[in-house]
Amino acid sequence: MSAPTLRPVPTPQPDRLRIFDTTLRDGEQAPGFSMNPAEKLEIARLLEAMRVDTIEAGFAAASPGDSEAIRLIASEIRNSTLCSLARATEGDIDAAAKALEPAHRKRLHIFLATSPIHREAKLRMSRREVLQTIERCLKHAAGTFDEIEFSAEDALRTEPDFLVEAMSCAAVNGADVLNVPDTVGYSEPDEIRAVFERLAAHVERPDHVIFSAHCHNDLGLAVSNSLAAVKGGARQVECAINGIGERAGNCSLEEIVMALQVRADIFPAISHVDATKIWSASQRLARVTGSAVAPNKAIVGKNAFAHEAGIHQHGMISDRRTYEIMTPESVGAPGSALVLGKHSGKHALVQRLAKLGYQPDPDKLNQVFKDFKHLADELGEVNDADLVAMMEGFSASGSRWTVLRTELRTTAGRQPKQFARVELEHPDRGRVSDIASGDGPIAAAFAAVQRITGTDATVTALETRMRSTATGREFVADISIDIDGTIFSGRARGPDIVTAAIDSLLFTLDRGEAYGRADLTQQQPAAAV
Amino acid sequence: MSAPTLRPVPTPQPDRLRIFDTTLRDGEQAPGFSMNPAEKLEIARLLEAMRVDTIEAGFAAASPGDSEAIRLIASEIRNSTLCSLARATEGDIDAAAKALEPAHRKRLHIFLATSPIHREAKLRMSRREVLQTIERCLKHAAGTFDEIEFSAEDALRTEPDFLVEAMSCAAVNGADVLNVPDTVGYSEPDEIRAVFERLAAHVERPDHVIFSAHCHNDLGLAVSNSLAAVKGGARQVECAINGIGERAGNCSLEEIVMALQVRADIFPAISHVDATKIWSASQRLARVTGSAVAPNKAIVGKNAFAHEAGIHQHGMISDRRTYEIMTPESVGAPGSALVLGKHSGKHALVQRLAKLGYQPDPDKLNQVFKDFKHLADELGEVNDADLVAMMEGFSASGSRWTVLRTELRTTAGRQPKQFARVELEHPDRGRVSDIASGDGPIAAAFAAVQRITGTDATVTALETRMRSTATGREFVADISIDIDGTIFSGRARGPDIVTAAIDSLLFTLDRGEAYGRADLTQQQPAAAV
Repeated sequence: MSAPTLRPVPTPQPDRLRIFDTTLRDGEQAPGFSMNPAEKLEIARLLEAMRVDTIEAGFAAASPGDSEAIRLIASEIRNSTLCSLARATEGDIDAAAKALEPAHRKRLHIFLATSPIHREAKLRMSRREVLQTIERCLKHAAGTFDEIEFSAEDALRTEPDFLVEAMSCAAVNGADVLNVPDTVGYSEPDEIRAVFERLAAHVERPDHVIFSAHCHNDLGLAVSNSLAAVKGGARQVECAINGIGERAGNCSLEEIVMALQVRADIFPAISHVDATKIWSASQRLARVTGSAVAPNKAIVGKNAFAHEAGIHQHGMISDRRTYEIMTPESVGAPGSALVLGKHSGKHALVQRLAKLGYQPDPDKLNQVFKDFKHLADELGEVNDADLVAMMEGFSASGSRWTVLRTELRTTAGRQPKQFARVELEHPDRGRVSDIASGDGPIAAAFAAVQRITGTDATVTALETRMRSTATGREFVADISIDIDGTIFSGRARGPDIVTAAIDSLLFTLDRGEAYGRADLTQQQPAAAV
Repeated sequence: MSAPTLRPVPTPQPDRLRIFDTTLRDGEQAPGFSMNPAEKLEIARLLEAMRVDTIEAGFAAASPGDSEAIRLIASEIRNSTLCSLARATEGDIDAAAKALEPAHRKRLHIFLATSPIHREAKLRMSRREVLQTIERCLKHAAGTFDEIEFSAEDALRTEPDFLVEAMSCAAVNGADVLNVPDTVGYSEPDEIRAVFERLAAHVERPDHVIFSAHCHNDLGLAVSNSLAAVKGGARQVECAINGIGERAGNCSLEEIVMALQVRADIFPAISHVDATKIWSASQRLARVTGSAVAPNKAIVGKNAFAHEAGIHQHGMISDRRTYEIMTPESVGAPGSALVLGKHSGKHALVQRLAKLGYQPDPDKLNQVFKDFKHLADELGEVNDADLVAMMEGFSASGSRWTVLRTELRTTAGRQPKQFARVELEHPDRGRVSDIASGDGPIAAAFAAVQRITGTDATVTALETRMRSTATGREFVADISIDIDGTIFSGRARGPDIVTAAIDSLLFTLDRGEAYGRADLTQQQPAAAV
């Protein structure tokens, strides 16, 4: 939270915007994003460290696993309020109360649809029955929780007068937070702002009650709708890391937090979230769910602070404010990257070569620049391994080791044991081969490489992504490797994924030795995972 | 473009919003998104078929490859205007003219920064010099192009009076389109709308000149800022498929087009884009650039029309309008998917089993439901292969073939030839093994499997994504397979990626035979790539 103090402080002092994180509930509910209780606890710890106000840990009545996860998280988290979702039934409220029992501070989040289409097609309830249900459930919940939140599901498609009536009913019966979900992601900023202004003017409620926005991203407007809600009077926003959630997801936590911080001159509220924890939480969530963040994702994508075009690189070298409105450090990202690609110029190449310890004479530089443009046309992005290979005439890995042969054998299709025999060649050591086993072909090959090179670090391949090159004859493998707990990423080309992975490992081991690991992380643009 | 006719037609008739696509220029400029001329041509064909008004095909002066790509595209595309970017120099303008020569309709897009920080830190030009340069360049370009667009780079951080002056200078010297780029993605909707309203009121220009918005997504606001610009008077929006572009990318084409279509009741303009072509263009771009679309990406993510939660599935089965504001068919997506996961109920399971041809008795159903919940906790999403395996007691692939053994051999690390020996077991045919070669381990293994099963279709593995299961002992491989030009996706678990790929292939071949391929595509939720 350093940026606001660096900017002219708006007058009057901005209100506090509460961040309600639903990564573990709405986010986890999306196909492919399920997490087990241990994984949920890990994410909850990151949210607490980030100083999120409320963590919605799950939907207790949905499954025994969800209930167990809420209880596990409630037993440990102390600095954020813990919340469980519940339908408007006594059974769901009791299940939430039970799961939240160990929590330091408990919130019940009860929801009931209020729009005509949901009342008629799904609930089969009249307006009157909806109001009666709200009253009955809030009375049932009274005294059991520290805070109660009421959500009018599909609020944005509810008749304006009935939405005021339903919200007033919830407030006078004990709700502390009145949440307005744009359940189907249909609204747009001016419209949702007007809804909040109308609610603020007409809902009957005690002073402590606050309004909350829960926006979905079906038209790409979740963040701007949430910001418009803040202008209209909302003082809680519901969001999720990486914007995960049902369908196109929820308002993304990192975007709402940073928009309020970067544009503190415009918005009337600001969050108390520690933004420097954003990057690592985003990366960890992507790892846990196996769903990578898109390179062009705002704030947390690997290109969010990367510049390849010659003009932008020139601007960044002159004054980084020309193309950056926030620093990567402000969100805990590893640093701005000037990526070398076909749009880059000779100046950027010379600078990168100098960082790698090379100062080629003009003839050599011309040759390398030509090779570089050729390779950039083929691969898109040229990395340090490629540059070292060009300068030294090394193998494709940029290592002094060359892969001669890899043989893999799975002893039985259903047994996880795999053997790999790898033969490498080194200018000083000649041909060396060894065999090792592992849980998969890459693990086995890595173990064999480590025997040959004599490295005793614990090396694990975390993630692989493959694409074929323009010619279609080779694969480019982008691989993340965990060496003794530090994560490196590399790219290598090869005829198959295993050879590419070995090349990536050899490059990392080699350069790590030569430059030290801290330097390596910095030298690889868009490299740290 | 069917939706507006299904909705109450706004009065007065909405204006036409021109769609200027910069996928091939700003999009391609981002690290990792480079395309070669043939790939660019393929994307340009999709853009033309989508009826995009203007295609920015590249930046002619940037590299010989870019110039070649523009010329190649200009030779073929007939129904969209072709555009090249150029800095404000005679050399860049001439390069653009040369590359655009074969085009049916040519636009020059000339840009010069106008903000104080860019003038001072990058250009080292005074206000006066900026105006002189605009005038000189527009005079140089006159007569060579059908249309000229002028962009005031970093317009949103330019002094308001000077922005009016620079835009007026461009308009009176022959610019037809005045583009307002939020180069650093710093603006927010109310602010950018006011900028357009001020420009529309004060810029001196002929009637035919239109204003254009070019928004970046650094704070997640590119689409809402573009929509606000339209409210403020913009009649062209610059955007890119999948929102690709520098850093956090550009306004996403699919989101702006669908927001205007779905909310035609609010916005004063609408595009003439054929939205039903959006899905396939998005998928093709992802394939060409090797950068997958995030599952929670609006409109084109694989979860955009997917529903897993029991409540949402219940609503969708009652009336799909409860949770859908547009149909998947309206953007050419394969259909709404009710995904089976741990949040799903027994009703959805029964429905899916019935589609697969199973009507288990209550005892069997209870057993399968228990197995299903267990598997969902472990894998997140349960697919048809898993269900068939549960019902039939088949192997993990859901096929009657079981993988017994896979042996892979790379004869030399740098040669692309790979051999695979695969041994399968079948209840009727016993143990069968065969050996084949291919360009990589998966291709070789597939060839061996095809020899064994006697399939002569052309099978290619297009994409693989791996993650470890919760226990960490197995991999889950999501694999797309091209069989004779039709694309299928499957998921399989296995101790290594090759075995998982084989299982996925066996499942696809088996079910394809049993149900016919068309059915298969529909039966696999979120399956077609």
